[in-house]
Amino acid sequence: MKSRIKKIFEFAEEKVDAIVIYNSVKPHLDKTFFYVTGLTEGVFENCGLIFYPDLSSEMIVSKLEADSAKKAENIPTKVMEDKEDLKEWLKEKLEGLDKIGINGSELTYKGFDKIKDSTDAEIIDMSDSIVEARNRKDENEIEILDKAGEIASEVAEEIPDHIEKGMKEYEVAAEISYLMKKKGATGDAFEVIAGSGPNSAEPHYTAGERKLQKGDFLVLDFGALYKRYRSDITRTFIIGEASDKQKRIYETVLEAQQAALKKIESGIKGEEIHNAAKEVIDSTEFEGKFIHGLGHSIGLSTHDGSGLSPNVDVTLEPGMVFTVEPGIYISGYGGVRIEDDIVVTEDGYEMLTDAERELKVL
Amino acid sequence: MKSRIKKIFEFAEEKVDAIVIYNSVKPHLDKTFFYVTGLTEGVFENCGLIFYPDLSSEMIVSKLEADSAKKAENIPTKVMEDKEDLKEWLKEKLEGLDKIGINGSELTYKGFDKIKDSTDAEIIDMSDSIVEARNRKDENEIEILDKAGEIASEVAEEIPDHIEKGMKEYEVAAEISYLMKKKGATGDAFEVIAGSGPNSAEPHYTAGERKLQKGDFLVLDFGALYKRYRSDITRTFIIGEASDKQKRIYETVLEAQQAALKKIESGIKGEEIHNAAKEVIDSTEFEGKFIHGLGHSIGLSTHDGSGLSPNVDVTLEPGMVFTVEPGIYISGYGGVRIEDDIVVTEDGYEMLTDAERELKVL
Repeated sequence: MKSRIKKIFEFAEEKVDAIVIYNSVKPHLDKTFFYVTGLTEGVFENCGLIFYPDLSSEMIVSKLEADSAKKAENIPTKVMEDKEDLKEWLKEKLEGLDKIGINGSELTYKGFDKIKDSTDAEIIDMSDSIVEARNRKDENEIEILDKAGEIASEVAEEIPDHIEKGMKEYEVAAEISYLMKKKGATGDAFEVIAGSGPNSAEPHYTAGERKLQKGDFLVLDFGALYKRYRSDITRTFIIGEASDKQKRIYETVLEAQQAALKKIESGIKGEEIHNAAKEVIDSTEFEGKFIHGLGHSIGLSTHDGSGLSPNVDVTLEPGMVFTVEPGIYISGYGGVRIEDDIVVTEDGYEMLTDAERELKVL
Repeated sequence: MKSRIKKIFEFAEEKVDAIVIYNSVKPHLDKTFFYVTGLTEGVFENCGLIFYPDLSSEMIVSKLEADSAKKAENIPTKVMEDKEDLKEWLKEKLEGLDKIGINGSELTYKGFDKIKDSTDAEIIDMSDSIVEARNRKDENEIEILDKAGEIASEVAEEIPDHIEKGMKEYEVAAEISYLMKKKGATGDAFEVIAGSGPNSAEPHYTAGERKLQKGDFLVLDFGALYKRYRSDITRTFIIGEASDKQKRIYETVLEAQQAALKKIESGIKGEEIHNAAKEVIDSTEFEGKFIHGLGHSIGLSTHDGSGLSPNVDVTLEPGMVFTVEPGIYISGYGGVRIEDDIVVTEDGYEMLTDAERELKVL
């Protein structure tokens, strides 16, 4: 897609003659391969792509991806007979070039070695400009992300019909994943998190054998994979009956999310949005219990390279897509997280996920 | 796990003072982090691990993984306050070392840069010895892989009860994934492939909107993720009624798989097993239609670094786990693949997946 290639080169701080993308073996694929080709089918392990400042591109694919590769428009494609073909292709394409770019964030060290062995050109890590380009989603991407968000939101709303006390966490995760796929998700954006009771205090817990018990928090964090793009939503429920403390935790997190959302507009620093949520939590008895960044950019990857966090220097622009997910985590007791996806617009932002947020008891 | 660290150093061709593992952002995590720590919960983005020839190890984790990290036995763990802590930890740990190893197959170029900036030591790519170690599964790993295989096999047997003409491919994929998760899979080992009709000729197709029609081949390729390990099974069905040509294709693939399985034993070259299957196919009217390697090693990754293929130099040893998956692909018409997972033993091999293989019409 020429407009995407153009965007990558526009963000380049250094001029290069070409950018080479090389996919290693799953999961070490470079999402930029799919960003530029727009291919939604196929795996493309050990396949390569090169694109140029004149916006042209070429790729080399293995035989078993040849059929999938045909769906890329206007990209001349060589089909490998054996792995020597890749080396030759690289040599041929890189010959005579002075400076070539790579994507150091998604290229393995071994893949880098392969490229280095094929050329005398200077190799420049262009991962920053690739991230900048990919962080500003185009209309086509936002349409896909909106659908991915819609699938996750619908499932979030249906949870009370499917989840109840006594179920095991992994059974809960199975239901959620199933509901998403029945609505057209091609996969889970990531392993579904179904953390109950004390497990809800582990932000990156997945799901285990524990049965849902009365008085549990139940953190459900999931997203739909749709045309290679991802959504990411979290809703926290209570099993049986909510205690006063649980209600206070929940309301604090919800208030923190609202405070953050109010801040979102083009031109504001990501860190400020994080701080708006953090200030709400830190002004309560739950001070210090919000232990991660407020959100991450999302797109072809769940963590797509930027974020709303004190550790990330980003100024919001239209087309940027972030999660907004404050949480309170009390080790050994439990946790609450509420997460939605938004896209920054000219006028503020739009929600990509929109399931109800009030506290629900299952 | 000291026995796994020991195995990695035993395969080292060069002596190093330590091996450093660094996880980038998902999916660019190094499975070796989980191989060595044995951790089954948590994501561990931007976290690090170092291990030494004396079999000791240490790790540094972000705050939000601190709870998950506690489950690692005997690994001193530093919890990061901010990202500067990682740099300092790397500097401190690498100071005074002459040679350090990295895993070039799973470390990003950017991660390599981070390590390089923290040390004057010579940096050696130890990915070959890491692959060699990880290719020889220990008892604990085989037990997990056996369970992952059992989940997938049970689901394969139940398919005729759940799949029928008129369903869309993605609905089929949803059913399969759900059945696996209800049996305890924490996720799909990879996106479920449900390729019907002409789509069955694309080995790496996933699933789309197409409805199952009478006369279709239906290739179902899926696996269970279980305690971070993966299974991988394929069964091909016919919708409605099988033509004579379809039966011939199916029987040829089945015969090819049987021929390959017969060859499997410790001491044999992977390529010979591939050739046994290929010869069966190439001796029929379907010559040249088997377009990929016969199988890949499987473990923490679906493609775990080795394989039964003319492109891979491997001699089978007890503990190695491979898929055995011949296929015939006729572009525009359809394809058949039959795939099982095996572990090489002292006496031959054992099946990790064991669903029935005779042709079934749905």
